Amino acid sequence: MQLSEFLRRACGSDLWPYRGIQPVTEPTPMGHEYCGIVEEVGSAVKQVKPGQFVIGSFFASDNTCPNCRAGYQSACEHKEFVSTAQASILRVPLADGTLVPTPAVPPNELIPNLLTLSDVMGTGWFAADAANVKPGATVAVVGDGAVGLLAVLSAKQMGAGRIIAMSRNESRQKLAREFGATDIVSERGDEGVARIKDLTNGIGADSVAECVGSQESIMQAIRSTRKGGYVSYVGVPHGVALDGAELFFAHVHLHGGPAPVRRYLPRLIELVLDEKIEPGKVFDLKLSLDQVAEGYRAMDERRAIKALLQP
Amino acid sequence: MQLSEFLRRACGSDLWPYRGIQPVTEPTPMGHEYCGIVEEVGSAVKQVKPGQFVIGSFFASDNTCPNCRAGYQSACEHKEFVSTAQASILRVPLADGTLVPTPAVPPNELIPNLLTLSDVMGTGWFAADAANVKPGATVAVVGDGAVGLLAVLSAKQMGAGRIIAMSRNESRQKLAREFGATDIVSERGDEGVARIKDLTNGIGADSVAECVGSQESIMQAIRSTRKGGYVSYVGVPHGVALDGAELFFAHVHLHGGPAPVRRYLPRLIELVLDEKIEPGKVFDLKLSLDQVAEGYRAMDERRAIKALLQP
Repeated sequence: MQLSEFLRRACGSDLWPYRGIQPVTEPTPMGHEYCGIVEEVGSAVKQVKPGQFVIGSFFASDNTCPNCRAGYQSACEHKEFVSTAQASILRVPLADGTLVPTPAVPPNELIPNLLTLSDVMGTGWFAADAANVKPGATVAVVGDGAVGLLAVLSAKQMGAGRIIAMSRNESRQKLAREFGATDIVSERGDEGVARIKDLTNGIGADSVAECVGSQESIMQAIRSTRKGGYVSYVGVPHGVALDGAELFFAHVHLHGGPAPVRRYLPRLIELVLDEKIEPGKVFDLKLSLDQVAEGYRAMDERRAIKALLQP
Repeated sequence: MQLSEFLRRACGSDLWPYRGIQPVTEPTPMGHEYCGIVEEVGSAVKQVKPGQFVIGSFFASDNTCPNCRAGYQSACEHKEFVSTAQASILRVPLADGTLVPTPAVPPNELIPNLLTLSDVMGTGWFAADAANVKPGATVAVVGDGAVGLLAVLSAKQMGAGRIIAMSRNESRQKLAREFGATDIVSERGDEGVARIKDLTNGIGADSVAECVGSQESIMQAIRSTRKGGYVSYVGVPHGVALDGAELFFAHVHLHGGPAPVRRYLPRLIELVLDEKIEPGKVFDLKLSLDQVAEGYRAMDERRAIKALLQP
């Protein structure tokens, strides 16, 4: 099926190839976060209809295979990475499995919120869910990118009693507090771990969401967690290796991976339409699609958390 | 407090120093699995009484600190490793927190079963519990030592629908079947993974318990698990490093570490006294305490699964 008139986002994970850490040898399409109006559907598409407003995940999925049925659509047996969203028209494969329509075409002001569900909000929700956030729990979030900030918002929605955001950037700290953070820790590494321990009577947090993907951040997450607590990891790992003996004696639970955004879309769409959450606040830069390069530049230089690209 | 007239076991984990993989530079006491009659208690001991038959874990724990209260007594803030059990008298620190008495001195024939609770049975139970074994689940167990075999027994008790034991040793395969294994896989590494996939419609097992501690066995466990499934690790890791990217895309849950045996002792004592489980079947060699060296030799050469040492 084809989408047009759609919004797109520049994603933090695109910064790995942008910075050359992940080699790019030829012209490559970019963009994997999108929502918009259905223009046209293929003959095999039965549910999705032209004219509908739909949101999909960065992984297209059939939503019927055993992995999808287990709730891991991002590991669908027929998954395809949607990587051409920074364009005027987008083809989404496996449309019926991938796309979730809203009940009606939503008002313009809600669309940035809906756009985040396609990746960063869905991923932040998975970060909190995989870290087993429960009502009253003490939660720490490592990483103050859009996903980390939305993990804070998710933990708040799930009833966390205390939410510690790890950030050294003033505007992100402010947004973290708006989203529900009760404490801010600006230290990193061992000092960051020591601060979390200080804040938790020496025990560590119940749930820690790792939203970066570096060796330092995952070790910081594991060491900040109490015995028997939960660590999630949703940042694509770069150069990460976990030492078996340290992991063994850490006594934590671990879960993560590419977020199964599709699983959470119906629930998150409801939360946005009911105006219970406003994840679109992460967009602090609005550009037109032909200014996409500036969007990546601003994110790379940490001048912007997230760029919204409009047709 | 001091125990006498007690039974002890030679443990698989003692084989690491026995084989010189873990350096031993001076004469070192051995033995961390025990049960027996209380001879004498110190003045600070309030609950445990002389004459009681008691079982303790290899980690002494106060059972009151926050880690203990969270159910992780093997990470007690005051834990002490009990390492002098191959002796005629044993001092157990933190007696009130560590030792669980049976309602009466049990009949002789049940004592080998009770002895296993001190480590291998408690660890096998944790392996199944940390792998989230649920009624009807498909479970695979990597490792056919006493812990692996008792993880099979535990999975059976927890209602697993299918239990795949990975073993290439005929007598251990037989015991695995007695304990509840429905399938045996003798292949290892990638071939072992392929066999598990064959047995599970290409999906992988719901729960996989890793009871060895080597790089090969933990990777075999992770790769044998379905997306969203659970992997536990209870074998002390030697030279293990987990690649972040592989872990990320595996989409499994992980949990493990030194088993919090103390958490499970009351329940497991009940199961033994009610004759619901017979974990003592793992003892296939009975020796007197002064023959302890032969016990380790037989286990090292895989002539015995487990040696029982009597006073």
